[in-house]
Amino acid sequence: MRKPVAITMGDAAGIGPEIIAMAFRDAPDVTRGCFVVGDVETLRRANAIVQRDCETQLPLVSIGAVSEAVSCPPRCMPVWQAVTPPKACADFGQISAEAGRMAGECVVWAARAALRGEVAALVTAPLHKKALSAAGAPFDAFAGHTELLQAEAVAFTGRPPHELPVRMMLANDELRVVLVSIHMALRQAIDAVTQENVLQTLRITQQSLSRMLGRAPRIAVAGLNPHAGESGLFGREEVDIIAPAVQVAQAQGLQVSGPYAPDTVFMRARRQMGQEPEFDVVLAMYHDQGLIPVKYLGVDKGVNVTLGLPLVRTSPDHGTAFDIAGTGRADPASLIEAIRMARSLSAEG
Amino acid sequence: MRKPVAITMGDAAGIGPEIIAMAFRDAPDVTRGCFVVGDVETLRRANAIVQRDCETQLPLVSIGAVSEAVSCPPRCMPVWQAVTPPKACADFGQISAEAGRMAGECVVWAARAALRGEVAALVTAPLHKKALSAAGAPFDAFAGHTELLQAEAVAFTGRPPHELPVRMMLANDELRVVLVSIHMALRQAIDAVTQENVLQTLRITQQSLSRMLGRAPRIAVAGLNPHAGESGLFGREEVDIIAPAVQVAQAQGLQVSGPYAPDTVFMRARRQMGQEPEFDVVLAMYHDQGLIPVKYLGVDKGVNVTLGLPLVRTSPDHGTAFDIAGTGRADPASLIEAIRMARSLSAEG
Repeated sequence: MRKPVAITMGDAAGIGPEIIAMAFRDAPDVTRGCFVVGDVETLRRANAIVQRDCETQLPLVSIGAVSEAVSCPPRCMPVWQAVTPPKACADFGQISAEAGRMAGECVVWAARAALRGEVAALVTAPLHKKALSAAGAPFDAFAGHTELLQAEAVAFTGRPPHELPVRMMLANDELRVVLVSIHMALRQAIDAVTQENVLQTLRITQQSLSRMLGRAPRIAVAGLNPHAGESGLFGREEVDIIAPAVQVAQAQGLQVSGPYAPDTVFMRARRQMGQEPEFDVVLAMYHDQGLIPVKYLGVDKGVNVTLGLPLVRTSPDHGTAFDIAGTGRADPASLIEAIRMARSLSAEG
Repeated sequence: MRKPVAITMGDAAGIGPEIIAMAFRDAPDVTRGCFVVGDVETLRRANAIVQRDCETQLPLVSIGAVSEAVSCPPRCMPVWQAVTPPKACADFGQISAEAGRMAGECVVWAARAALRGEVAALVTAPLHKKALSAAGAPFDAFAGHTELLQAEAVAFTGRPPHELPVRMMLANDELRVVLVSIHMALRQAIDAVTQENVLQTLRITQQSLSRMLGRAPRIAVAGLNPHAGESGLFGREEVDIIAPAVQVAQAQGLQVSGPYAPDTVFMRARRQMGQEPEFDVVLAMYHDQGLIPVKYLGVDKGVNVTLGLPLVRTSPDHGTAFDIAGTGRADPASLIEAIRMARSLSAEG
């Protein structure tokens, strides 16, 4: 029997619960076999909001065991009460310690279930960093999902953090990029372009994309400098660091090439109708190099994938959108894509 | 009477002459009132190549005065013999000192004509940097078009180079970006993000875009760091340098805002069918930040515009393409857009 996919509800004051209810309402084929990890009353409120102008009923089923998620009929929303219920439903758009605590507890519950092999994958609705921090210990020690998940993986496997390196992949219909580094100043991101970091990113990309595509991925490596440095004329990182890392990976049998000029490599990796791109994925040297092209065509369908951990985790490429939470105006497209991607990344999902 | 637009032929061994002949053949409305600054025999050869499978005749007219360009009928190609003719036509795809010399001489001739006010604007077909260098003095002192043009402007105006700061704009149907710096290592590009450089780029952008749009442009300024630094969390350049520069420019009356998160600002400035973008132009902090989004959708129609000089100069967003030169397979779309842009940037073109 297929294992279910767990969707964590995110911050209750944000759009997370709503877009989850919308995904169950609008994409029954995609959400079949999924269940929500959250608070039943919070999800019930979200469900009422998204059904306001809607003829179809979307029954919420409070499940007593994870296995019930799989046998639930389509257009039902199975919810696992993973947290101590709040005193009252969270106020929309407000940072609150209780919403932060619930969001954190859901992620921890789902991470453990995934690590134990009880769920096929994790899809996380957005949490709010300040609410997570307001929740106090243990959650205030974590900047966000990735750090929480890494800590759970460390605890579960007993391996030290440096043996569980994490990388972020962003993907939409057209393009996949994996980032060598994420949230740090650009100066520090340049320092993080080391041979070991590039190689580690290549290894993680190879492993995850092979599973996803069912074959070895064709990986393009972007340069760091304009025109990939023009043979050392505008910076030596390509000559001294990136090209040697690519050669090592090639010697290990990876289908990898580069470093390529950053301003044209993404175009060459872009999947368009009736055109086979040159590459399956681009390794970007820093956050904006990879995110600018992924987001340029719109953020509707961007999916964030955490690579490198012993669990599958995807998330929509947007935040809690406190400004429109509770209005029913949020767009579930990115979450639906994230669920689809979680399934394709997990053999069993 | 409208002044003519001068198109320099570029490196004779590259695709320059061919795409010029194609532009006159395919876009008579756009090329009307333009003339080629080059070598008549080289252009005659290019003309023969592009007419090979073509029914329409495209007569080449060797003009004796710039003013003749304006009275030339459409689907004629007026050519001004601006250089000492070569001993023989250049071999396609080969770097040669003679092709470099001709390319350089054409640019110098056209720059002087523009500075004297005899032509409305300059459109430059691609030259090859190594050929320019092989041409020896005075051309080997210049990295490319921009440096050549700046030197001519310095000589003509008698003003020192630092009073003639140059910036590069890239534009296509959807997006315009102006770059704070161009061809330097990313580390140096970060150092070049100074308040004075950002302000100078803002002033140049304001001046050029006002002329182009006929109104004050809405300028968005990108941050340097991921998420524009998140209030100093990932780098302080936004707080210490970019935001203060934006405030100074605002106080001077510019419609400028930012710094914005680099990964979404370009999307917000993108012109799409039936949608008015939030901004007319984005100030990018370094080469790839601006060029990745401009090139992501393809390089066919990208135009390079040199801002800041006392002349109008545009060029196609590609190089000499030695690998396909002489085959007639080159695409004139970017050159045609460059001519169109040159006209819109010059009041008289």
